[in-house]
Amino acid sequence: MRIAIDAMGGDNAPDEVIAGAIEAVDSLAPDDRIILVGLEDVIHAQVPDKARYRDVISIVHAPENIGMDETPIESLRRKPKSSIAVAAKLVKRDQAEAVISAGNTGACVAAFQMRMRNLEGVNRPGIAVVFPTMHGPVTICDVGANIACKPINLYQYAIMARSYSKHVLGIESPRVGLLSIGQEDAKGNEVVKKTRELMRADKKINFVGNIEGREIFRGVCDVAVCDGFVGNVVLKLTEGVVDCLFSAIKHELMQEKLRLAMKFKPVMMRIYQKYDYNEYGGAPLLGVNGTAIICHGSSKSRTIKNAIMAAKKFHIARINDRVVEYLAAASVRTPDDQTSQ
Amino acid sequence: MRIAIDAMGGDNAPDEVIAGAIEAVDSLAPDDRIILVGLEDVIHAQVPDKARYRDVISIVHAPENIGMDETPIESLRRKPKSSIAVAAKLVKRDQAEAVISAGNTGACVAAFQMRMRNLEGVNRPGIAVVFPTMHGPVTICDVGANIACKPINLYQYAIMARSYSKHVLGIESPRVGLLSIGQEDAKGNEVVKKTRELMRADKKINFVGNIEGREIFRGVCDVAVCDGFVGNVVLKLTEGVVDCLFSAIKHELMQEKLRLAMKFKPVMMRIYQKYDYNEYGGAPLLGVNGTAIICHGSSKSRTIKNAIMAAKKFHIARINDRVVEYLAAASVRTPDDQTSQ
Repeated sequence: MRIAIDAMGGDNAPDEVIAGAIEAVDSLAPDDRIILVGLEDVIHAQVPDKARYRDVISIVHAPENIGMDETPIESLRRKPKSSIAVAAKLVKRDQAEAVISAGNTGACVAAFQMRMRNLEGVNRPGIAVVFPTMHGPVTICDVGANIACKPINLYQYAIMARSYSKHVLGIESPRVGLLSIGQEDAKGNEVVKKTRELMRADKKINFVGNIEGREIFRGVCDVAVCDGFVGNVVLKLTEGVVDCLFSAIKHELMQEKLRLAMKFKPVMMRIYQKYDYNEYGGAPLLGVNGTAIICHGSSKSRTIKNAIMAAKKFHIARINDRVVEYLAAASVRTPDDQTSQ
Repeated sequence: MRIAIDAMGGDNAPDEVIAGAIEAVDSLAPDDRIILVGLEDVIHAQVPDKARYRDVISIVHAPENIGMDETPIESLRRKPKSSIAVAAKLVKRDQAEAVISAGNTGACVAAFQMRMRNLEGVNRPGIAVVFPTMHGPVTICDVGANIACKPINLYQYAIMARSYSKHVLGIESPRVGLLSIGQEDAKGNEVVKKTRELMRADKKINFVGNIEGREIFRGVCDVAVCDGFVGNVVLKLTEGVVDCLFSAIKHELMQEKLRLAMKFKPVMMRIYQKYDYNEYGGAPLLGVNGTAIICHGSSKSRTIKNAIMAAKKFHIARINDRVVEYLAAASVRTPDDQTSQ
């Protein structure tokens, strides 16, 4: 397969992005190809041992770049030759099967959606993030693509994230939870209540009902569905709590004997590694016509390498075909006019 | 002041609730009174050394009880003599200045709001929870009273939580953040965008703009405002992440030498204590006409004691008078017809 990578996107681009692509080469299949998109001269200068990578890595020039803080839609309009837009266009034109970027998340969502279009039957794409927990990986969708969700969007996120959980993460029958503020059916806002009816009506979903925030980490579900506003808060809050707690432990240990602090360090490192979501290599944008992976802005080469592997898995598992087939055959039919809140 | 306590509310009622009231006695002022509300016989049997507490603690009989899982509105209608309803009624009838309950949160919100009514100028009450962080306490409002917030509600939560932060927690000029999904003004849903305009227009608020989930723990604000759905997810997610991380550390330490694990235990205990929100003794329901404190269902005697102290502080600081005065004088005027989304 051909994987287009936005070489200019992210806080550590292009160095770490290019390094990640290079690291991935040895794990690729013979017919896999990597296309680095961005300033040709800059990228060319950074690819080492060019003769060795000649057959695997190619460069597509993109003269413009969208900064991390630019307004997504507006910047895409102003910079049609940005690396994000050009990379997405490669998928649109059948010159690549996948696109990966660690750039401006909003611009990625907008570019991928505009260029690649939605999958047949999908109303709105959603970003899925995998949370590593003690009880296994939990896939949360959406974490920021769609902040004004209708019930049909949440239902489709369940279908797509479930397919990802099953065919990419290998969970046989993913349990799907709907993030709300109480387990009882009576709880939640109107969108949550209507979504629950859609989920219940689809007997193929292993639906465990409403789940509360704390339950994401308690092994009660493999997939958690929510709107992009709530999901984004969940994602960033989790980051914040973990950082805060690790800092507190460090601070507390510093008050102790230095020897104890030193002994505890490898334990903390192991935990960091075990629950490091970089292992999952970025977040797929589910529901677009192609494989699209969005990485954290702070991604290092390892994350980019893992994102390339994740893109391969996603493509090989035929997630998109499965979603289209599922939605076409779904017993839950929700024409647009029934889905307005 | 007179403090009505729902003796039957919570997972550990009435034992721990009554024990908490007893523990508080020595810290009360000479004219403070505690009124335990619930099954008279049961409470009477549990108050030790009755002669000693005769002047401080009295009992008001309430023959009914609302369970933790009952539907709030429906159960209040069916059980007008429940301990929650009777305790709230004492404040309504000027027989108490404050009410405290560790019972069904939804029923508490509904009962306090129905019996005590809203403060003049307040459209909807909100629950405020104090998060202890390394950078000091952060007050978050709302965490579950109002899941369909309008901009005016969020604006008023800012005013009320700010007053609480200043006059109860002693923060001189509380920095107020609006929880959203990006710091830029363009980010957030429609309610967030309109709320931001209201906040900006009020020059008396030390408004720091949008904050992201992770920033709650990074010392950028003293007050964080959000709707009750998001706030409840935040509250429970934080609980979940902390539990998960502590379990992971414990698990990891168990793989190590037992001696190291034992040495680390007191460090963890200290962190638990330092960041234990039970220290703040429950969450005030801001915006009702009286002092109302809602405690976690799992509250032990210490939390109840702290809630009594919090109720005293809240009352003495005249939070409600201050809020009414502030809103009456506020330059931001938002008649109801301007506040619909």
